[in-house]
Parts: sequence; C-alpha cells; structure tokens
Amino acid sequence: MTANAIAVDVGGTETKAALVAVGERGAEPQRRLRRPTPRGADGAETAELVVTAVAELVAELRADAAADAVGVVVPGAVDEVRGVGVWSANLGWRDAPLRDLLAERVDLPVTLGHDVRAGGLAEARLGAARGRRDVAVVPIGTGIAAALLFDGRLHSGGGFAGEIGHLDIGHDERCGCGRTGCLEALASSAAVARRYRERTGVARTSAEVAAAVRAGEADAHAVWQEAVDALAQGLLVLVTVAAPECIVLGGGLAQAGDLLTGPLRSRLDDELAAYHRRPDLELAELGDTAGCLGAALLATEGLERQ
Amino acid sequence: MTANAIAVDVGGTETKAALVAVGERGAEPQRRLRRPTPRGADGAETAELVVTAVAELVAELRADAAADAVGVVVPGAVDEVRGVGVWSANLGWRDAPLRDLLAERVDLPVTLGHDVRAGGLAEARLGAARGRRDVAVVPIGTGIAAALLFDGRLHSGGGFAGEIGHLDIGHDERCGCGRTGCLEALASSAAVARRYRERTGVARTSAEVAAAVRAGEADAHAVWQEAVDALAQGLLVLVTVAAPECIVLGGGLAQAGDLLTGPLRSRLDDELAAYHRRPDLELAELGDTAGCLGAALLATEGLERQ
Repeated sequence: MTANAIAVDVGGTETKAALVAVGERGAEPQRRLRRPTPRGADGAETAELVVTAVAELVAELRADAAADAVGVVVPGAVDEVRGVGVWSANLGWRDAPLRDLLAERVDLPVTLGHDVRAGGLAEARLGAARGRRDVAVVPIGTGIAAALLFDGRLHSGGGFAGEIGHLDIGHDERCGCGRTGCLEALASSAAVARRYRERTGVARTSAEVAAAVRAGEADAHAVWQEAVDALAQGLLVLVTVAAPECIVLGGGLAQAGDLLTGPLRSRLDDELAAYHRRPDLELAELGDTAGCLGAALLATEGLERQ
Repeated sequence: MTANAIAVDVGGTETKAALVAVGERGAEPQRRLRRPTPRGADGAETAELVVTAVAELVAELRADAAADAVGVVVPGAVDEVRGVGVWSANLGWRDAPLRDLLAERVDLPVTLGHDVRAGGLAEARLGAARGRRDVAVVPIGTGIAAALLFDGRLHSGGGFAGEIGHLDIGHDERCGCGRTGCLEALASSAAVARRYRERTGVARTSAEVAAAVRAGEADAHAVWQEAVDALAQGLLVLVTVAAPECIVLGGGLAQAGDLLTGPLRSRLDDELAAYHRRPDLELAELGDTAGCLGAALLATEGLERQ
C-alpha cells in the first residue's frame, strides 16, 4: 500500500514542506516547497501564523495531487499524544494546540510530531539505521538530543525522553540551561565554535574548526578532542541506560564524518565493559530531509492505527 | 480469558515456583513451592541441574491442576529472544540454552525471562506502577539495575538495558566490576553495609543501618545520606535519558520505606529542570513474589502472541 502524505517541517527560520509517497519500499518526496517561518508579536500569535502558513502549504501541495494525511513536526517540547507544542524557546509558544488548530483548517487527518524524534524515525526506517530495532539518533547542532527507538517504536516519554545534551559529565563550563557540566556545553557544534573562539580569539564555525583539525592545528585539535571525549562520556551513559544496538550521529558536527566517528568509536570502545551492549556508530544519511520524511512516516502510521 | 501459568524464579540460592492464574483482573498464585537452587561443578553442569529441578517443579505443580504455559526467570544476563542465559556470575553459566533444554523436558510452551525485568513487569502491571506506561523499576540489593517499560512494553536492549548500577557518578570507591565511580558502589544495600563497617568497624546489615539512622546515629546518617545523594544522581540520569513517569524502588534498601523515598524525592526534585519529566517515586509492592508473577505474565503473554 502506498499513501501520499503532506509533510511539513517547521524550523526556527525556515519551513519545509513536501508531498511524500510512502510505500512498502520507502518514502519518496514528490514535490518540495520552502517558506520562511512566520513570526508574531508573541508565541501565541506565532502559533496562529505558523498554522496559517502550514495550511497554505498543504493547500498548494494538494492542488495537483491527492493526499491522504498531513504530518507536521515542530521544534522544542512536543506532546505527540495531545498534539500540543508544549514550548519552543525559538518560536516562543507555550501549550499551543497546534494539531487542533490545524485540523480546523485542513480536512485531512493531522499528526503532530517532534522534529528530532521524527528525523530519528526516518533515519531508523529509511536511513543509516535501516533494519535496526533499538536505535538512538543523535543530532549534534546548536544543542544535542537523542531520538530513541526501542523495538522499532519511537519512545517519547511524554516529550521529555533523550535530553542527553543536559547529562552532567562533570566540567565547569556553563550551559545555556544555566547549569554547569552539560554535555552540549562542550560538544555541540555551537560549543565547538564558541570554545575555539574563546581559546584563539578567531571566529570559526565548527566545520571550519574541523578543517583546521585536519590541517594539524593544535588549538583546533584540543577543542575537538575535548568535544569527542565529552561525547564518548555521554554516549556511554546512553548505552548503560538504554542499550541501543546502533547510534546514528547527525547535525552540524557529524558533517566532519570520520574525523568525528573514528576517535569517538575508539574512545567509546575503551569504556565499554562486559555489561554494555556495543553499539554500531553510523553517520546520518538523510540530511535536512529527515524531518520531512519523518513527518510523512508519522502521518501514514497514524492512518494505519485508524 | 484466564490462563494458568507455571512460574519459576531461579535465584542464586533458592528457586521459587508457583501455579499462577493470570486473568484480566490480575494474577493469583494458587500454590507455591520452594527448593534450594542446585549447584554443579561448573556452570554447564549447574545449568543441567537447574533445568532438571525446574522440570520436576513443573511436573509437581501440574499433578493436580491444568497448566497452559511455563515461564522461567533467571539472574545475570539473559537474551529473552533466543531463550539463553548469557552469563550469570552467581550460577556460573555462559550461553546456556535454558529454554531449549527445558522444552525437551516439558510439553508446554516455555518462555525464558530475566529476573529483574520480569519483576519490573509485574510491578508495572500488578503492583506499584499499575496503569502507568513509562516505568522504571529499580531493585536496590547486592547491586542496582533498572527494569524499563516504555509504553507498557519491557525494553530489554538485547539483555543489556538498565545497567544503572554502573553509571559513573564520580567518586573514588571501587566497584565489584573493577571500576571506580559506579552508583552501586555507594548506594546498593551491600555498599551501605560495607561502608558502615569501614567507617565504624561494626558489622551491620543495611536494614540495621537504616534503624540506626532513625535512632539518630551520626555515622549511620552519613553513610545513608551519601547513598541517597548517589541514588538521586543516578535517577536524574535515568530521567534525563529515558523520562519514566514513575520510578518504583525495590530490593533490600527500599525496605527502609520513607527513610529512603523522603530524602530521595527531595534531592531529585532539587535537580530537575524544565526539560525533565518529573517522575513519581513509589515503593515496590510485590516483594519477593514479583519474579514469579512476572514469569507468569511472560508465559501468558507468550501465549497471546502465538
């Protein structure tokens, strides 16, 4: 069976939409649209403007193709069961009933999801972790979080599961959350850029820091190694608690490829004991289409449950 | 529908068995037997002797009642899918194909499970976490582990999930596993007894240490408080990664009741941030029948899948 889903990935700056044919053998985006994400004077107004923009994208994609369902993913904290955007630091809303607001504008079944978990679902079904049942997908960008799949099913934990960026790994750098010791304060791509600048006075992106590591620059190497060591500690905790068979690394820092996975695998292997499952480390394959593909999967899996 | 399961909980020193009627409204042990767990010259021989003893218990319980299925739970590392006792430090076996060995002796469907996870399943379905979907059941005894249920289903992680006793919480005490920093090296009931003895020269069980805390003894209080602080750190990690809505504390240390849960809840609440789910803390209700009840649930759920 093939179903056509309209998938919408609402980002902090840009909203991506696509018509996606979801079948037994995979998911194929048929047509794509991109729009700036609208902003209101406050979070409630932003929620209204986003809902209007999503409804317009849905109408445009339905104009020349039949669609069976709509899947929308948003950032922040999301309660998938109630269809609510619980909060978003970026978009400013709190307890925005996005699914119900959308259902008033769209006469198709609407599923609301979380951008990171939806992207993780896509990597597990269609990308780097195809065929695996116990998977953690870890985007390393401005922050760090994990999408967790156990026995092939997304674990949401009421919207709170997988906040590994805030694991305390024992250091003195302050995190955006106000604490010290958080994994993402050393190992996010934002942290790598910030720490390089603090060390050298030179502003570079994490990708430029990675290039400098390859070129043999000592300061870049030191910052990178601290990020890798921190990630190894964080992944060890993830393995101890949840025992994934496969960990997929994505986001900005994973663009560095084997410069990240090589030393990380080595450091993690050093730490594993007999009571730990040894996970495969993979690089994400779907890039920035993962969110849309995941939204399409959520929409069509919602159909199957009906 | 009601099914009669023969449930067997193979412990390090004693094996408990019961005929359990499992129905919509709960599970009721009808008849119970206890035997010493047999020991051979090596792990393979122990596995053979245990299988023989379990088959005899099954025959005895079937003599005067009809049974539909057999559920057996064992300690150590267990691969439920293959039905294999991967290893047990206590019973000495490695890769013992216990389910297949038993199936040769018993003409009923046989399910093999893990004692901690089975006990957790029982607490989640029938005990302290009835009605909850995302649950961690944490027995605190000689060691510390967590049975994890997500959306009502046990997560095994190939037999490796929930090894929270070996989370590194940053201290210098050596653990039985050879490392330093492990949660269970400060907070297991064995660790509380050991640390009290090291501090005072007096041999006491963890229950006696708890009584001394209630009596206002300073040394007992210091050891207890360090155990509580360590547990709060470990549970915070569990919450950050897995976001259970309910954590059930069991095992020897939880016999202390509110002497454990009171300060632990307070310490954990101090640590929770906006991105953490706030779990309820409960005391286990099923005591040492949890393993047998869980074995019965595993046996009858196996029937439903057929």
